[in-house]
Amino acid sequence: MQTQNPNFRRKVQEIFDRAAFIEEVGIKVSNIGAGWCETTLEILPKHLQQDDFVHAGVLATMADHTAGGAAGSVVKEDEVVLSVEFKINLLRPATGNALRCRAELLRAGRTLIVAESEVFARTDNQEKLVAKATVTLAVVRR
Amino acid sequence: MQTQNPNFRRKVQEIFDRAAFIEEVGIKVSNIGAGWCETTLEILPKHLQQDDFVHAGVLATMADHTAGGAAGSVVKEDEVVLSVEFKINLLRPATGNALRCRAELLRAGRTLIVAESEVFARTDNQEKLVAKATVTLAVVRR
Amino acid sequence: MQTQNPNFRRKVQEIFDRAAFIEEVGIKVSNIGAGWCETTLEILPKHLQQDDFVHAGVLATMADHTAGGAAGSVVKEDEVVLSVEFKINLLRPATGNALRCRAELLRAGRTLIVAESEVFARTDNQEKLVAKATVTLAVVRR
Amino acid sequence: MQTQNPNFRRKVQEIFDRAAFIEEVGIKVSNIGAGWCETTLEILPKHLQQDDFVHAGVLATMADHTAGGAAGSVVKEDEVVLSVEFKINLLRPATGNALRCRAELLRAGRTLIVAESEVFARTDNQEKLVAKATVTLAVVRR
Repeated sequence: MQTQNPNFRRKVQEIFDRAAFIEEVGIKVSNIGAGWCETTLEILPKHLQQDDFVHAGVLATMADHTAGGAAGSVVKEDEVVLSVEFKINLLRPATGNALRCRAELLRAGRTLIVAESEVFARTDNQEKLVAKATVTLAVVRR
Repeated sequence: MQTQNPNFRRKVQEIFDRAAFIEEVGIKVSNIGAGWCETTLEILPKHLQQDDFVHAGVLATMADHTAGGAAGSVVKEDEVVLSVEFKINLLRPATGNALRCRAELLRAGRTLIVAESEVFARTDNQEKLVAKATVTLAVVRR
Repeated sequence: MQTQNPNFRRKVQEIFDRAAFIEEVGIKVSNIGAGWCETTLEILPKHLQQDDFVHAGVLATMADHTAGGAAGSVVKEDEVVLSVEFKINLLRPATGNALRCRAELLRAGRTLIVAESEVFARTDNQEKLVAKATVTLAVVRR
Repeated sequence: MQTQNPNFRRKVQEIFDRAAFIEEVGIKVSNIGAGWCETTLEILPKHLQQDDFVHAGVLATMADHTAGGAAGSVVKEDEVVLSVEFKINLLRPATGNALRCRAELLRAGRTLIVAESEVFARTDNQEKLVAKATVTLAVVRR
């Protein structure tokens, strides 16, 4: 996918570095491309819900923010992206050592971007898809 | 709305007390009824994203978990509810002192429950609707 | 809700009159206000799916187009609205003589409008809520 | 993907043959596999909305029913699938000669199935993705 910003990697990195809640949850960007983004999270006791699965809110935060990273990679330097809405399906209970999320763009328009995020839970060397989200973002001039 | 559990208030309270991520984020249950639930959150710097608005993941966590509280109020003592999917619209940037969320059931079936959650941001004495979610939950026998 | 178009009733009526698929399905506008819209449909054999319920596609078409009517009522004369995405929950099997849909706006921004549509099925003198949708629309200058 | 019904092709074909609204709209099944389904539609004037694009309701009907075909291919002979909810993003205005839809399963559980549907619009020999939907279906014993 084409980007309008040669410095897109730095721009996406900032979307993560300057978001306090992402640091709080512990989500780290692991890979950035033009039109996609990958993140990881070490699963800790603080991420769980009442049945000892990772809370849907953790999965949603990761899916949304990684989609924001993917969208941020294609816009202009003076533009920011803001989530308009998203929908997430929680496909299986999320358990294990770590989460990995990959977001890709389905459509990058001038004013709206649509991304998909897949979240995988890793136990030892096995990964399973635990959630999938579709995220609509607005492109806003700063 | 009718409940199948005379002790529903205790059951819903436990859905909050035993969820580590909810304590981590700082969401507190403020009111419980048969078929509805209300929560509050004091907005802190840790809840923000890169543009100083409350992160969509915080709003989603609150909307999802409060819907779980509303759904948990109508099921039997030996049943639990699990989010299957949700969709959230982020209607306005969320800023202010506190968030309030109210979830109500649209439909309570034997195996599936559908809830709606509205999240309001409070500044001084004014409240505005900042997000609205629809949550589908499965009723699971423990 | 405020509108930017004193002739909004005519404009909304045209959104229905000029949409061939809406005539094909048989959806009729029954009431128009600033920020809301109501439609009706007489249930016929052609609307059913394989289990003799009204097809989800009929409910989705009605929810989406009625939301478009509600959104069209508040924009300027030279603007049109286009659905960006929607989500619909099918709450109960839809059966009976007629459907009624009411759409209201949750948020009317300059470039994006969010509407909610409720679809009711009527049998004799009883109505039940059979579907609820959230629709995001873009405001486009013609 | 594995199916629990050796006669799944006949079962899926019936989901299309016995749905009056699908015949009314003109959606035809073109290919069936275990866990997936493909359909086509010749675009006619009756499918359009007020701006001469294919109506979102047509795309939603096709995405939903094709997902139902994919889900119907893996359940037991005495089980039926019913849409619980779906979300569709309308990525580009749909114009051209024909639509093609492909649905695949993301997750096939005992009581819930999640499918994704992609709808493509064809002009001459070119195809473009115009809509993508995520559909949650319930498995119901007849």
